[in-house]
Amino acid sequence: VLDAARALIEEQGFAAATIEAIAARAGVAKTTVYRSWSNRATLLVDLLVEVATEAVPPPGNDAGDPMRTLRTELRRGAVALNGLTGRLLTSLLGEAQEDPEVRTALLEGFFYRRREASVAVVRRAQALGQIRSDVSASLVTDLLYGPLFYRTFVVQDPVSEGVVKQMIQYVLDGLRPQDTRRK
Amino acid sequence: VLDAARALIEEQGFAAATIEAIAARAGVAKTTVYRSWSNRATLLVDLLVEVATEAVPPPGNDAGDPMRTLRTELRRGAVALNGLTGRLLTSLLGEAQEDPEVRTALLEGFFYRRREASVAVVRRAQALGQIRSDVSASLVTDLLYGPLFYRTFVVQDPVSEGVVKQMIQYVLDGLRPQDTRRK
Repeated sequence: VLDAARALIEEQGFAAATIEAIAARAGVAKTTVYRSWSNRATLLVDLLVEVATEAVPPPGNDAGDPMRTLRTELRRGAVALNGLTGRLLTSLLGEAQEDPEVRTALLEGFFYRRREASVAVVRRAQALGQIRSDVSASLVTDLLYGPLFYRTFVVQDPVSEGVVKQMIQYVLDGLRPQDTRRK
Repeated sequence: VLDAARALIEEQGFAAATIEAIAARAGVAKTTVYRSWSNRATLLVDLLVEVATEAVPPPGNDAGDPMRTLRTELRRGAVALNGLTGRLLTSLLGEAQEDPEVRTALLEGFFYRRREASVAVVRRAQALGQIRSDVSASLVTDLLYGPLFYRTFVVQDPVSEGVVKQMIQYVLDGLRPQDTRRK
């Protein structure tokens, strides 16, 4: 069913992916689709989670340098936002502004989980003294992800890898622990 | 006509403000409305410009300390995003993701102008050595405004004045000219 939804969106755009069209494409009854997803929004959020997880695997909790993890995630995020992940996210965000059902599905099914994973990586970086620890980890996450999403969804201008590298650099410069701040 | 649109939105929400309802409320014919605005999107963007200009006057080009101007604009912006400005912007941004007409009206009628004004203030701050001048002024603008819009539109969590102050502080810390960077 998710593959059918994905194919429909890639071929005909977001609006074409109705429950009816998805069921027809997948060769199942509408009632079968509704057994797994209570509405179109939750189905599309599940597709978003699948697509986004492929494009930007969520950071693990244990391994590696947290600063490198953050940089990798942001760079991959910028690339993904220019592709299907971005198109799905843009459309769902648009619908979420007007439709509370979409909003809840998107926040609870996608954003809160991704955000929690990022916040955990920021905390590890703070524990290692790589990011100043007197700033809340969720504010750090906003500062890192905000410019990327702002460019993509508000100004609607794609972010190149070069720009995302600069974004990360300057934000992290401002969040350096006071004693190791470079001159 | 704009007052009628505003009253309708405040009383009945964004979806109620159709051209038909706005014309009826203003006591004019629909054709009169269409003489000034080619569609609903351009009318609502004009209303947004009016509401946003009241809430956050665009920074002038000549007077005062640019850093203070930026801080004031961001703080007022955070307050405005929690009110009618935010509701209008949220709805229009949502529609813009699906409707190219709304997208163009919103970007050209609102965002590009506000952004240009902010970029000009950033340039003045760079000329005065308050912000490092080796970073593009539009990237600085993204770093400053991104977290605010990200919180409001993506994470959908209102930003308090305390949080916006912190956002500004840490971003500007990262953009300090190298030689005056504080230890």
